[in-house]
Amino acid sequence: MQPHLDHFRALLAERDRFCILSHIRPDGDAYGSALGLALSLKAFGKEVSVYNEDGLLWNYHFLPGKECIEKTPAAAPGPDVAIIAVDTSTQERLGETFVGWNRQPDVNIDHHQSNPGFGRINLIDAESPACAQILYDLIEAAGLPCPPEAATNLYVGLMTDTGSFQYRHTTAHTFEVAAGLVSRGADPTAIAQRFYQSTSVESFNLKREVLGVTKFTHGNRVAHYRLTREMYAKSGARTDEVENFLEQLQVVGSVEVAFMLEEMEGGKTRVSLRSRGTVDVNAIAGGLGGGGHRLAAGIRSSLPPDELEALLLRQIGEALAAHGG
Amino acid sequence: MQPHLDHFRALLAERDRFCILSHIRPDGDAYGSALGLALSLKAFGKEVSVYNEDGLLWNYHFLPGKECIEKTPAAAPGPDVAIIAVDTSTQERLGETFVGWNRQPDVNIDHHQSNPGFGRINLIDAESPACAQILYDLIEAAGLPCPPEAATNLYVGLMTDTGSFQYRHTTAHTFEVAAGLVSRGADPTAIAQRFYQSTSVESFNLKREVLGVTKFTHGNRVAHYRLTREMYAKSGARTDEVENFLEQLQVVGSVEVAFMLEEMEGGKTRVSLRSRGTVDVNAIAGGLGGGGHRLAAGIRSSLPPDELEALLLRQIGEALAAHGG
Repeated sequence: MQPHLDHFRALLAERDRFCILSHIRPDGDAYGSALGLALSLKAFGKEVSVYNEDGLLWNYHFLPGKECIEKTPAAAPGPDVAIIAVDTSTQERLGETFVGWNRQPDVNIDHHQSNPGFGRINLIDAESPACAQILYDLIEAAGLPCPPEAATNLYVGLMTDTGSFQYRHTTAHTFEVAAGLVSRGADPTAIAQRFYQSTSVESFNLKREVLGVTKFTHGNRVAHYRLTREMYAKSGARTDEVENFLEQLQVVGSVEVAFMLEEMEGGKTRVSLRSRGTVDVNAIAGGLGGGGHRLAAGIRSSLPPDELEALLLRQIGEALAAHGG
Repeated sequence: MQPHLDHFRALLAERDRFCILSHIRPDGDAYGSALGLALSLKAFGKEVSVYNEDGLLWNYHFLPGKECIEKTPAAAPGPDVAIIAVDTSTQERLGETFVGWNRQPDVNIDHHQSNPGFGRINLIDAESPACAQILYDLIEAAGLPCPPEAATNLYVGLMTDTGSFQYRHTTAHTFEVAAGLVSRGADPTAIAQRFYQSTSVESFNLKREVLGVTKFTHGNRVAHYRLTREMYAKSGARTDEVENFLEQLQVVGSVEVAFMLEEMEGGKTRVSLRSRGTVDVNAIAGGLGGGGHRLAAGIRSSLPPDELEALLLRQIGEALAAHGG
């Protein structure tokens, strides 16, 4: 980390104004990393803006400092403002408005393996389970303050991207970072309750619709469902309330691949695929105009949903068969 | 911890043979604590037996060292064998066979507030989120070895009793203990996968039956379902595969009380109740011959299920109304 750290320290000494951006359709690590760093820099006396193409989504309204999140403005900030991208694998994923600024980020801090290093300074650690973990180490190493509100945001990033310390890349150091954040004021119980126990009845109703139509095929090694506009209407759930449904299928021990097809407005179909490792879902998505990585990928397709579903089931079946299944 | 530690050290110096017991219907903390301590003592050169009234339940077959778990034998061990109880609030909960031994445990290590201190040496810390956390600190303080297999078992105890670091009493120290266990060889990702992602298709099918019949009442502040023999038969799930279904209702933010009624063989009905805090479900259970504590209680009743269900809904409604609801 040393050369990055020296560059980052130099930037802190040079600039008084920062803007922090994270990826579109932000998750807990995107918001938590952006706000965690912003609140640390603010406590250090800097002027900081936090931008996102989507602004603040409803289910993150509990984050301290959320009021400083703004939708990315059309006009780029002046050249004296340093731009920091967090948790974002490509410049495009910072959003169309950012791309329109036509500026390179000064700092690019991320944990996605595919990140090409689009910043002037790049601090990328694909072994880190969350961008928030990299930021905690950076804040500590740079001697920046970490007030309780910053610690809470970084904890949200760490907790959500590790699936509560269950996903791969969770190491002894991840727990040391969690201990550090808790000792700096993050409340793990309160945060988990706000995040995991704040489902709406409408979302619960949609979940049971989804579980009700879930099909297990290929000897219970593939699970999938189709999410229709009608199911949204019947349950009353919002389209941003369907997170983690695919993960609910992955608790079944026999399931190698889980996927879902969602009817979008305008007739397109959005597909999300998850793999336990045997099948490379990125390869399947790539063949249908989508992408992602080996364990998680997505597609937006204009094919008729029935045809798309049959095609995916066949290709996943072939991939399983190729691995001795 | 110092006086307990001195007594524990003296016992380690005095005795070569130990037997470790934990509570009936054991959970991850009971097995993890018992095996964690057993494998540490074995690595220290002691002879150790691990007893449980129920032996080893199917879903803990992944625990290293599980082969040393035996059903509690009818005959008590000789007086040279030191008895250690872990994670068990009363002697009765060590099981009928143990009670028949008519011996007091030498050491009683637990984190239940209600533990009366039934051992010769009592090490009770009600602030600890898991008995495994107390044991880790004890093993470290006593200078006992903690091989990877012991660390894995203690991690299982810590992870399960904190609900993956989400329940109350999860502190910075809890994360420090987790970091210590991982650095000693516990693999958090593999353990979580073995524990949380090993649902059977049958259990998943039962869960969707249950979610399908769940009712929300009292302005969505009460959620409940009835589990029938028919639902078991239809799904093919075992009766020991229904854990955590009630917790799935508690993710709905508006839910103050969640409960379930399960048809037992022989015509009785088992009720489990969970509260977020406003309603004292122990008081409601107590009035119907059951018990537990404020946030979690149970009943076994011979009342007809319809009558029992209506009675519970009315009493919970009254309790909510009494709190301004």
